Amino acid sequence: MSQNRRRRSHAPRPRADVGEETRSDLIAAGRRLFGQRGYDGASVRAITHEAGTNLGAVTYHFGSKRELYGAVLEQGLRPIAERVQAAARSEGTALERMLRVVEAYFTHFEAHPDLPHLLMQEVAAGKRPPPVVLEILKSVKEAIAGLQVEGVADGSVRPGHPVLTALSVVSQPVYLALVAPLLRTLGPVDLSQPATRELSLQHTLAFVRAGLAPARSDSPR
Amino acid sequence: MSQNRRRRSHAPRPRADVGEETRSDLIAAGRRLFGQRGYDGASVRAITHEAGTNLGAVTYHFGSKRELYGAVLEQGLRPIAERVQAAARSEGTALERMLRVVEAYFTHFEAHPDLPHLLMQEVAAGKRPPPVVLEILKSVKEAIAGLQVEGVADGSVRPGHPVLTALSVVSQPVYLALVAPLLRTLGPVDLSQPATRELSLQHTLAFVRAGLAPARSDSPR
Repeated sequence: MSQNRRRRSHAPRPRADVGEETRSDLIAAGRRLFGQRGYDGASVRAITHEAGTNLGAVTYHFGSKRELYGAVLEQGLRPIAERVQAAARSEGTALERMLRVVEAYFTHFEAHPDLPHLLMQEVAAGKRPPPVVLEILKSVKEAIAGLQVEGVADGSVRPGHPVLTALSVVSQPVYLALVAPLLRTLGPVDLSQPATRELSLQHTLAFVRAGLAPARSDSPR
Repeated sequence: MSQNRRRRSHAPRPRADVGEETRSDLIAAGRRLFGQRGYDGASVRAITHEAGTNLGAVTYHFGSKRELYGAVLEQGLRPIAERVQAAARSEGTALERMLRVVEAYFTHFEAHPDLPHLLMQEVAAGKRPPPVVLEILKSVKEAIAGLQVEGVADGSVRPGHPVLTALSVVSQPVYLALVAPLLRTLGPVDLSQPATRELSLQHTLAFVRAGLAPARSDSPR
């Protein structure tokens, strides 16, 4: 939002273009370094050096390192939130749309493999993500939980807790993306291979579909 | 293994008891600080101060901070690996045993809520865990993948990729434990409440059971 505002009010003036470029250089540099070194490991000095700006640029453009991190995550998460919302609003039963949400995650993480690491390293460290990120995560959570409720209504999804269902669904692509480097070490699943990625997508779709579809009889435990 | 050797050869002598106590104080201090501050954020100075030992004690007892981290994770993960192995070898169909594996994770994480964070903050940062940890993770992965194969044989689990199935199952308790603090912020699911934890266990068991059970008819997508 602040990015749009900045664009609208400053776009015609050359100096603002420079500012906009610096801002986007800092986001790109922050994304690289937060991804490689973690939030704590990426200093403002290293980020501004990487972006080719002066040391004060983070403060000038974002206010703080924490707010730059928020901007990096926002840039990464906003498109996936939009993909999820689009999948949730698409045609078909709620279960079909839920599976499209899963595909949206796979597609997005394939293009942006750094994203789950960027977000989850802070979540795993028990830290609270910046407000703009919480707002995006909340909208995603609500879109998917809403599909569970719609699915019970249209008969494509069995009854259950909407938010816990959303977590079960999202955990699949996120966890898989997180442990991909570890898996390569443990063998024999190498998710950097396109064929294995496709296999993992098909596996996940089948698991989620079966996990959510209404029972056809009582299933004894 | 080195712990056993140390115990066997030194146990009768008082000085070794002191050494053993220092070692275990360092592991406890490391676990607290790695959990609170992350691996990079917890300095050797802070850990030895917390443990009440001299600054050289980490090097003396473990060789390096990295090896102390390995010992912390080993202490945390070994018991869960044993629980998983026990569940995998218990009575019943492979699917029933798989669900006991899920329960084992819930039970263990409830008693040790720091554990998923301790491990996953490094995994999420794309770092390779210490060798002893890789060995434990590999044994767990193989036990669960083995259940998938046994389940296809005994008819309780539908055909699928064993390792990807193991990941789908493990992702449920691990992801839930990881995002619990975030969930509390986003509302309205507070997994620190016993009733909500029980609800999340029942939800997860139902999701995994449905996700793995053989299809009773073709399920159109």
